[in-house]
Amino acid sequence: MSADVFSHRWLGGLFGDRQAAAIWAPDRQIAHMLRIEAAYTRARAHAGTWPKVRADRAARVIETCIPDLDALRSGTARDGVPVPELIRQIKAAAGDDSDLIHVGMTSQDVIDTALSLTLRDINELLAARLAELCAALSALSSASGHVEIMGRTRMQAALPIRFAHRAASWATPLADHAAALSAQRSSVERLQLGGPVGDRAGLGAAAPVVAAEMARQLDLHDAPAWHSTRAQIAAHAGRLSLITGSLGKMGQDVCLMAQQGIDALQIRGGGGSSAMPHKQNPVLAELLVTLARFNATQVAGMHHALVHEQERSGVAWGLEWMILPQMTMATARSLAVAQDLCARITIRDGHSPA
Amino acid sequence: MSADVFSHRWLGGLFGDRQAAAIWAPDRQIAHMLRIEAAYTRARAHAGTWPKVRADRAARVIETCIPDLDALRSGTARDGVPVPELIRQIKAAAGDDSDLIHVGMTSQDVIDTALSLTLRDINELLAARLAELCAALSALSSASGHVEIMGRTRMQAALPIRFAHRAASWATPLADHAAALSAQRSSVERLQLGGPVGDRAGLGAAAPVVAAEMARQLDLHDAPAWHSTRAQIAAHAGRLSLITGSLGKMGQDVCLMAQQGIDALQIRGGGGSSAMPHKQNPVLAELLVTLARFNATQVAGMHHALVHEQERSGVAWGLEWMILPQMTMATARSLAVAQDLCARITIRDGHSPA
Amino acid sequence: MSADVFSHRWLGGLFGDRQAAAIWAPDRQIAHMLRIEAAYTRARAHAGTWPKVRADRAARVIETCIPDLDALRSGTARDGVPVPELIRQIKAAAGDDSDLIHVGMTSQDVIDTALSLTLRDINELLAARLAELCAALSALSSASGHVEIMGRTRMQAALPIRFAHRAASWATPLADHAAALSAQRSSVERLQLGGPVGDRAGLGAAAPVVAAEMARQLDLHDAPAWHSTRAQIAAHAGRLSLITGSLGKMGQDVCLMAQQGIDALQIRGGGGSSAMPHKQNPVLAELLVTLARFNATQVAGMHHALVHEQERSGVAWGLEWMILPQMTMATARSLAVAQDLCARITIRDGHSPA
Amino acid sequence: MSADVFSHRWLGGLFGDRQAAAIWAPDRQIAHMLRIEAAYTRARAHAGTWPKVRADRAARVIETCIPDLDALRSGTARDGVPVPELIRQIKAAAGDDSDLIHVGMTSQDVIDTALSLTLRDINELLAARLAELCAALSALSSASGHVEIMGRTRMQAALPIRFAHRAASWATPLADHAAALSAQRSSVERLQLGGPVGDRAGLGAAAPVVAAEMARQLDLHDAPAWHSTRAQIAAHAGRLSLITGSLGKMGQDVCLMAQQGIDALQIRGGGGSSAMPHKQNPVLAELLVTLARFNATQVAGMHHALVHEQERSGVAWGLEWMILPQMTMATARSLAVAQDLCARITIRDGHSPA
Repeated sequence: MSADVFSHRWLGGLFGDRQAAAIWAPDRQIAHMLRIEAAYTRARAHAGTWPKVRADRAARVIETCIPDLDALRSGTARDGVPVPELIRQIKAAAGDDSDLIHVGMTSQDVIDTALSLTLRDINELLAARLAELCAALSALSSASGHVEIMGRTRMQAALPIRFAHRAASWATPLADHAAALSAQRSSVERLQLGGPVGDRAGLGAAAPVVAAEMARQLDLHDAPAWHSTRAQIAAHAGRLSLITGSLGKMGQDVCLMAQQGIDALQIRGGGGSSAMPHKQNPVLAELLVTLARFNATQVAGMHHALVHEQERSGVAWGLEWMILPQMTMATARSLAVAQDLCARITIRDGHSPA
Repeated sequence: MSADVFSHRWLGGLFGDRQAAAIWAPDRQIAHMLRIEAAYTRARAHAGTWPKVRADRAARVIETCIPDLDALRSGTARDGVPVPELIRQIKAAAGDDSDLIHVGMTSQDVIDTALSLTLRDINELLAARLAELCAALSALSSASGHVEIMGRTRMQAALPIRFAHRAASWATPLADHAAALSAQRSSVERLQLGGPVGDRAGLGAAAPVVAAEMARQLDLHDAPAWHSTRAQIAAHAGRLSLITGSLGKMGQDVCLMAQQGIDALQIRGGGGSSAMPHKQNPVLAELLVTLARFNATQVAGMHHALVHEQERSGVAWGLEWMILPQMTMATARSLAVAQDLCARITIRDGHSPA
Repeated sequence: MSADVFSHRWLGGLFGDRQAAAIWAPDRQIAHMLRIEAAYTRARAHAGTWPKVRADRAARVIETCIPDLDALRSGTARDGVPVPELIRQIKAAAGDDSDLIHVGMTSQDVIDTALSLTLRDINELLAARLAELCAALSALSSASGHVEIMGRTRMQAALPIRFAHRAASWATPLADHAAALSAQRSSVERLQLGGPVGDRAGLGAAAPVVAAEMARQLDLHDAPAWHSTRAQIAAHAGRLSLITGSLGKMGQDVCLMAQQGIDALQIRGGGGSSAMPHKQNPVLAELLVTLARFNATQVAGMHHALVHEQERSGVAWGLEWMILPQMTMATARSLAVAQDLCARITIRDGHSPA
Repeated sequence: MSADVFSHRWLGGLFGDRQAAAIWAPDRQIAHMLRIEAAYTRARAHAGTWPKVRADRAARVIETCIPDLDALRSGTARDGVPVPELIRQIKAAAGDDSDLIHVGMTSQDVIDTALSLTLRDINELLAARLAELCAALSALSSASGHVEIMGRTRMQAALPIRFAHRAASWATPLADHAAALSAQRSSVERLQLGGPVGDRAGLGAAAPVVAAEMARQLDLHDAPAWHSTRAQIAAHAGRLSLITGSLGKMGQDVCLMAQQGIDALQIRGGGGSSAMPHKQNPVLAELLVTLARFNATQVAGMHHALVHEQERSGVAWGLEWMILPQMTMATARSLAVAQDLCARITIRDGHSPA
């Protein structure tokens, strides 16, 4: 029932990624939001501005809340964000302690901090896959790096090279991406706490303590409010696209190497045709290029979302929601595909005609 | 369980569109594919190249086939398209008539013709909504066109204008889009029939008859094979983005008019804030701008897919799958939102301070 | 002294196009603006609202004005458009008739109508080149259409085809583009006349007469003011990108066919390497793909410019200025390159290994 | 005579940047190329593979060569790069020492290393401007940070804030960009030396010595060949767009604050209208948004260029040439504009109606 390829009933077999999808799943996203609200309530108590016993009780109510998702959907249709309705439900459950819920925060604090928790999960997944893929490429190069293939520039035969040389052009950027991703994590896995207009005015002098305690509970980096400054989100999206772009180069190379007449490489398994049983299409390699071009297209949208006017732009924020999750899905899938591909290819001597 | 906003459990309340989603639903897509295969089998009989009785029998088997969607998913993972596995299932059901199924066609014929059927549904939905929206804007202009508002150029007060003048800048492009969409329909609601490499070689002299008969059965325009020439698909995507772009202008205007201090317009209902009960956010107007920027971003990807190499590009084709359905969703939603918005706004005299 | 490839001192040899550049040259652009101002002054007299003798005199002053371009540059830096300074210069030259200059128009009327005149020149150039290219492709297909080459799908050898089949996938879209371009011309080669806020209020009842007469003099289509509705400009940009996209497919095919090991085609001349004298790079074919991807990227920007707020958006308008001229340059160049390429290629039997 | 706004005869007044343009000027680019060739020849002697006396003599010939730019243009038209013709000219001048010129390098080594030298100049310019702008914003915030303005979320009045809070949302990302730019410099200001297919095979065991010596002479970072791995170039382009995007947020805020009815800010100077003498358009603020959207559009193209097939992609490389220089121009201009704007704005109490 979906127009996106990632969760599509059958295209999902090609484009989908179970682990990445689980990170974006509704229950996990709800859990993030509840955890954030609970952390906030407890942090207010920790800072001494809310009574500890009541705050603990309220936090436990929050944590055990099972939101009515249909109402959340209607609420989102009405308010543009799910949080007002979510808070209404939580407050209804909290009874007399409802004054210790959400007061001093705003919707964006919840949504953006939930994004941080989500990106942490995504980043861990990507880091693990980058490491595995680097290992797989290293193994491939160890096994076949000595094979002489024709080096090609501007799509013309140039001079013979060792396959190791081309494989290095696949692997080296990935090591860079792994390092960059690791370095970038603190800039996106961070608390957003700003209150209605982002200045934490409602928290008074206790604001730094509340923020630090929330960050500690959520295991996120403490940070000044970043509600209207989205460069680090866009930079992260850029890294996702750099990853898929580098894998797109690998995919394109594999497609070219697999051509009959070039025959520098063979791919085992998959790629059946409905009309030509003799064919074996380089489906996974093509997919790497498709995902690269998809993310290359999307990254522009994330940069347009930098024009985030005043203290909150509904326009720019919504654009991020439409694009960023898909970019993470494409990136996760691309890494898995590349690894699968490594296991399926055999380098052949493409220099002299087979 | 999805990373896309259209089918998202709660964001779908804001971004989703029930009617457009139904058009892309798996059962409807499967129905298209089966209908196409059946039409092909019957058309081969009609052309005299396949025996009519057996072909009719095979066509009925096709039409009543209930595919195993899990297998379709695995098949797509393996082959990059669902068709080889679908054909396997149909053939298994057809028994002795399996030689009268799909032979002479190829996966792309099925997928692209199904796209044509889908775009026909989409285009009908969009045409109806464009007409309704034009009527709604016309009514709004009739009711409030005389109100004097401040004309603003480069975001500065310029000279007073009638609201009708600004409303015309919202409505006029929509009339153009309706006309253009209508004119474009024949270029995208068309049969794709090419066989393995697009030259219909397997159909021999009967090819034109088979194509004409298939087109007739499917109520599509007959056309030469367009498997590797995607300009008309990209042009259609462009029209989708032109529609959302024009509505984005309207949305941006409404956002600006609704500002306190400008006060040229009031929006009834919706837009609640979790932190500021006094606020009423112009959620629908913002959404129009978000959808405009989303489609403006996507249209680039559709144009990149024009570089569709040789007789079939898995890369470029897959990129269309990732982007075009979402563009139709965004466009359908944008039209619905604009109409909803028309019913909610009241134009105020924004010329003199309220 | 330029960062753009079209006018670059040496890259211009590859990317530049003398005829297209002449259309955008400062003197020609100035001539358009003066012609528009003169036409306006005369049209006001024609409509009976300005005295004919004085208007003729003023119009002649306008037509013979030689603007100080340095001052125009400073004026643009200050005002964001060259028109206020241009009008100042014209008025200084017109002396007592300066009250019959520009009054009732606005900067955007001049700039946008000049764009219409420019696009008319561009469209004529493109139409001529499309026709020539279609003829060249037709000749190529006549000469070599019978040659059997390997049809390739998803970059894998599929079944043999005639070269004519692939050539048709290059030529057919061009014929479509020629027809579409011709049909679109009236929607972009049109007068823009709106006055300060686009409602022609300053022209009173004479507005339709003034507009019709201006359009007649300038040989443009008369049209309602389109100052804030840019869909037709964006649609035109889309067509430019569709043209380069179709040629990008041809370029990509040629690159693939020219590979050693595939050897389906030979290119005469050009493509020397500084390091490998034996190589002959398919420079022109690659350029077609580069230009396709360039325009595919740019088209997104033109669609973002549809969010043109209120009666004039300095933001969106300026974005068009940055992008549209370059898209026309890329398109003109692409057509010339494709034609050059046609004259240089020989189709070879790529089916059986050479 | 140019279709680009940066070097345009009058639009250059608005969009152009003298300092950035000088960095891309032909003479400076030629100087880079000659310097690289000379460094290479000397480095070969330093490594002991070429005779020192002759190499020094050849290097001096290279350094004093005054290339025929018209021939360079023709050469680029023919070969797709200027280097083969440049080398031809240098060799002609070098006479008997022509065997000590370029041998072992390739065109891409020269072009890409020249890009590194260019980006070093650009980065220094940007770093200086970022520092100046941060200081200007800091001064603005010191002077007016205490002023109470209306905080606005989703374009609706929310709660009063200090201007310092909004100013921080302009300044903070710039400090981040300055730090990130500084950190990124080593990844783009680096030697490219690979020879024909990038494996430095022609340099033998001396390759590391030659590379290190060249890097030393050119004051660039030594690096493995990066001819076909462009992620760091694309990452750099991303940073440029992040900078303009952050400034686009500032520009959008200023536009919104300058609206009559909001009146949170006044801009001194500029912005005259040809039709409405009472208007003062926020030209510079709008320009910031335009430049942001321009770069946001372009960044996609740079990411598409990551699909850089095999040992050299003429397609992807050419796409970088078309886009990256313009992105640097837009970024340099944006920083200058923002600084100019800071000097022109006065914050007003926009909370209570003026």
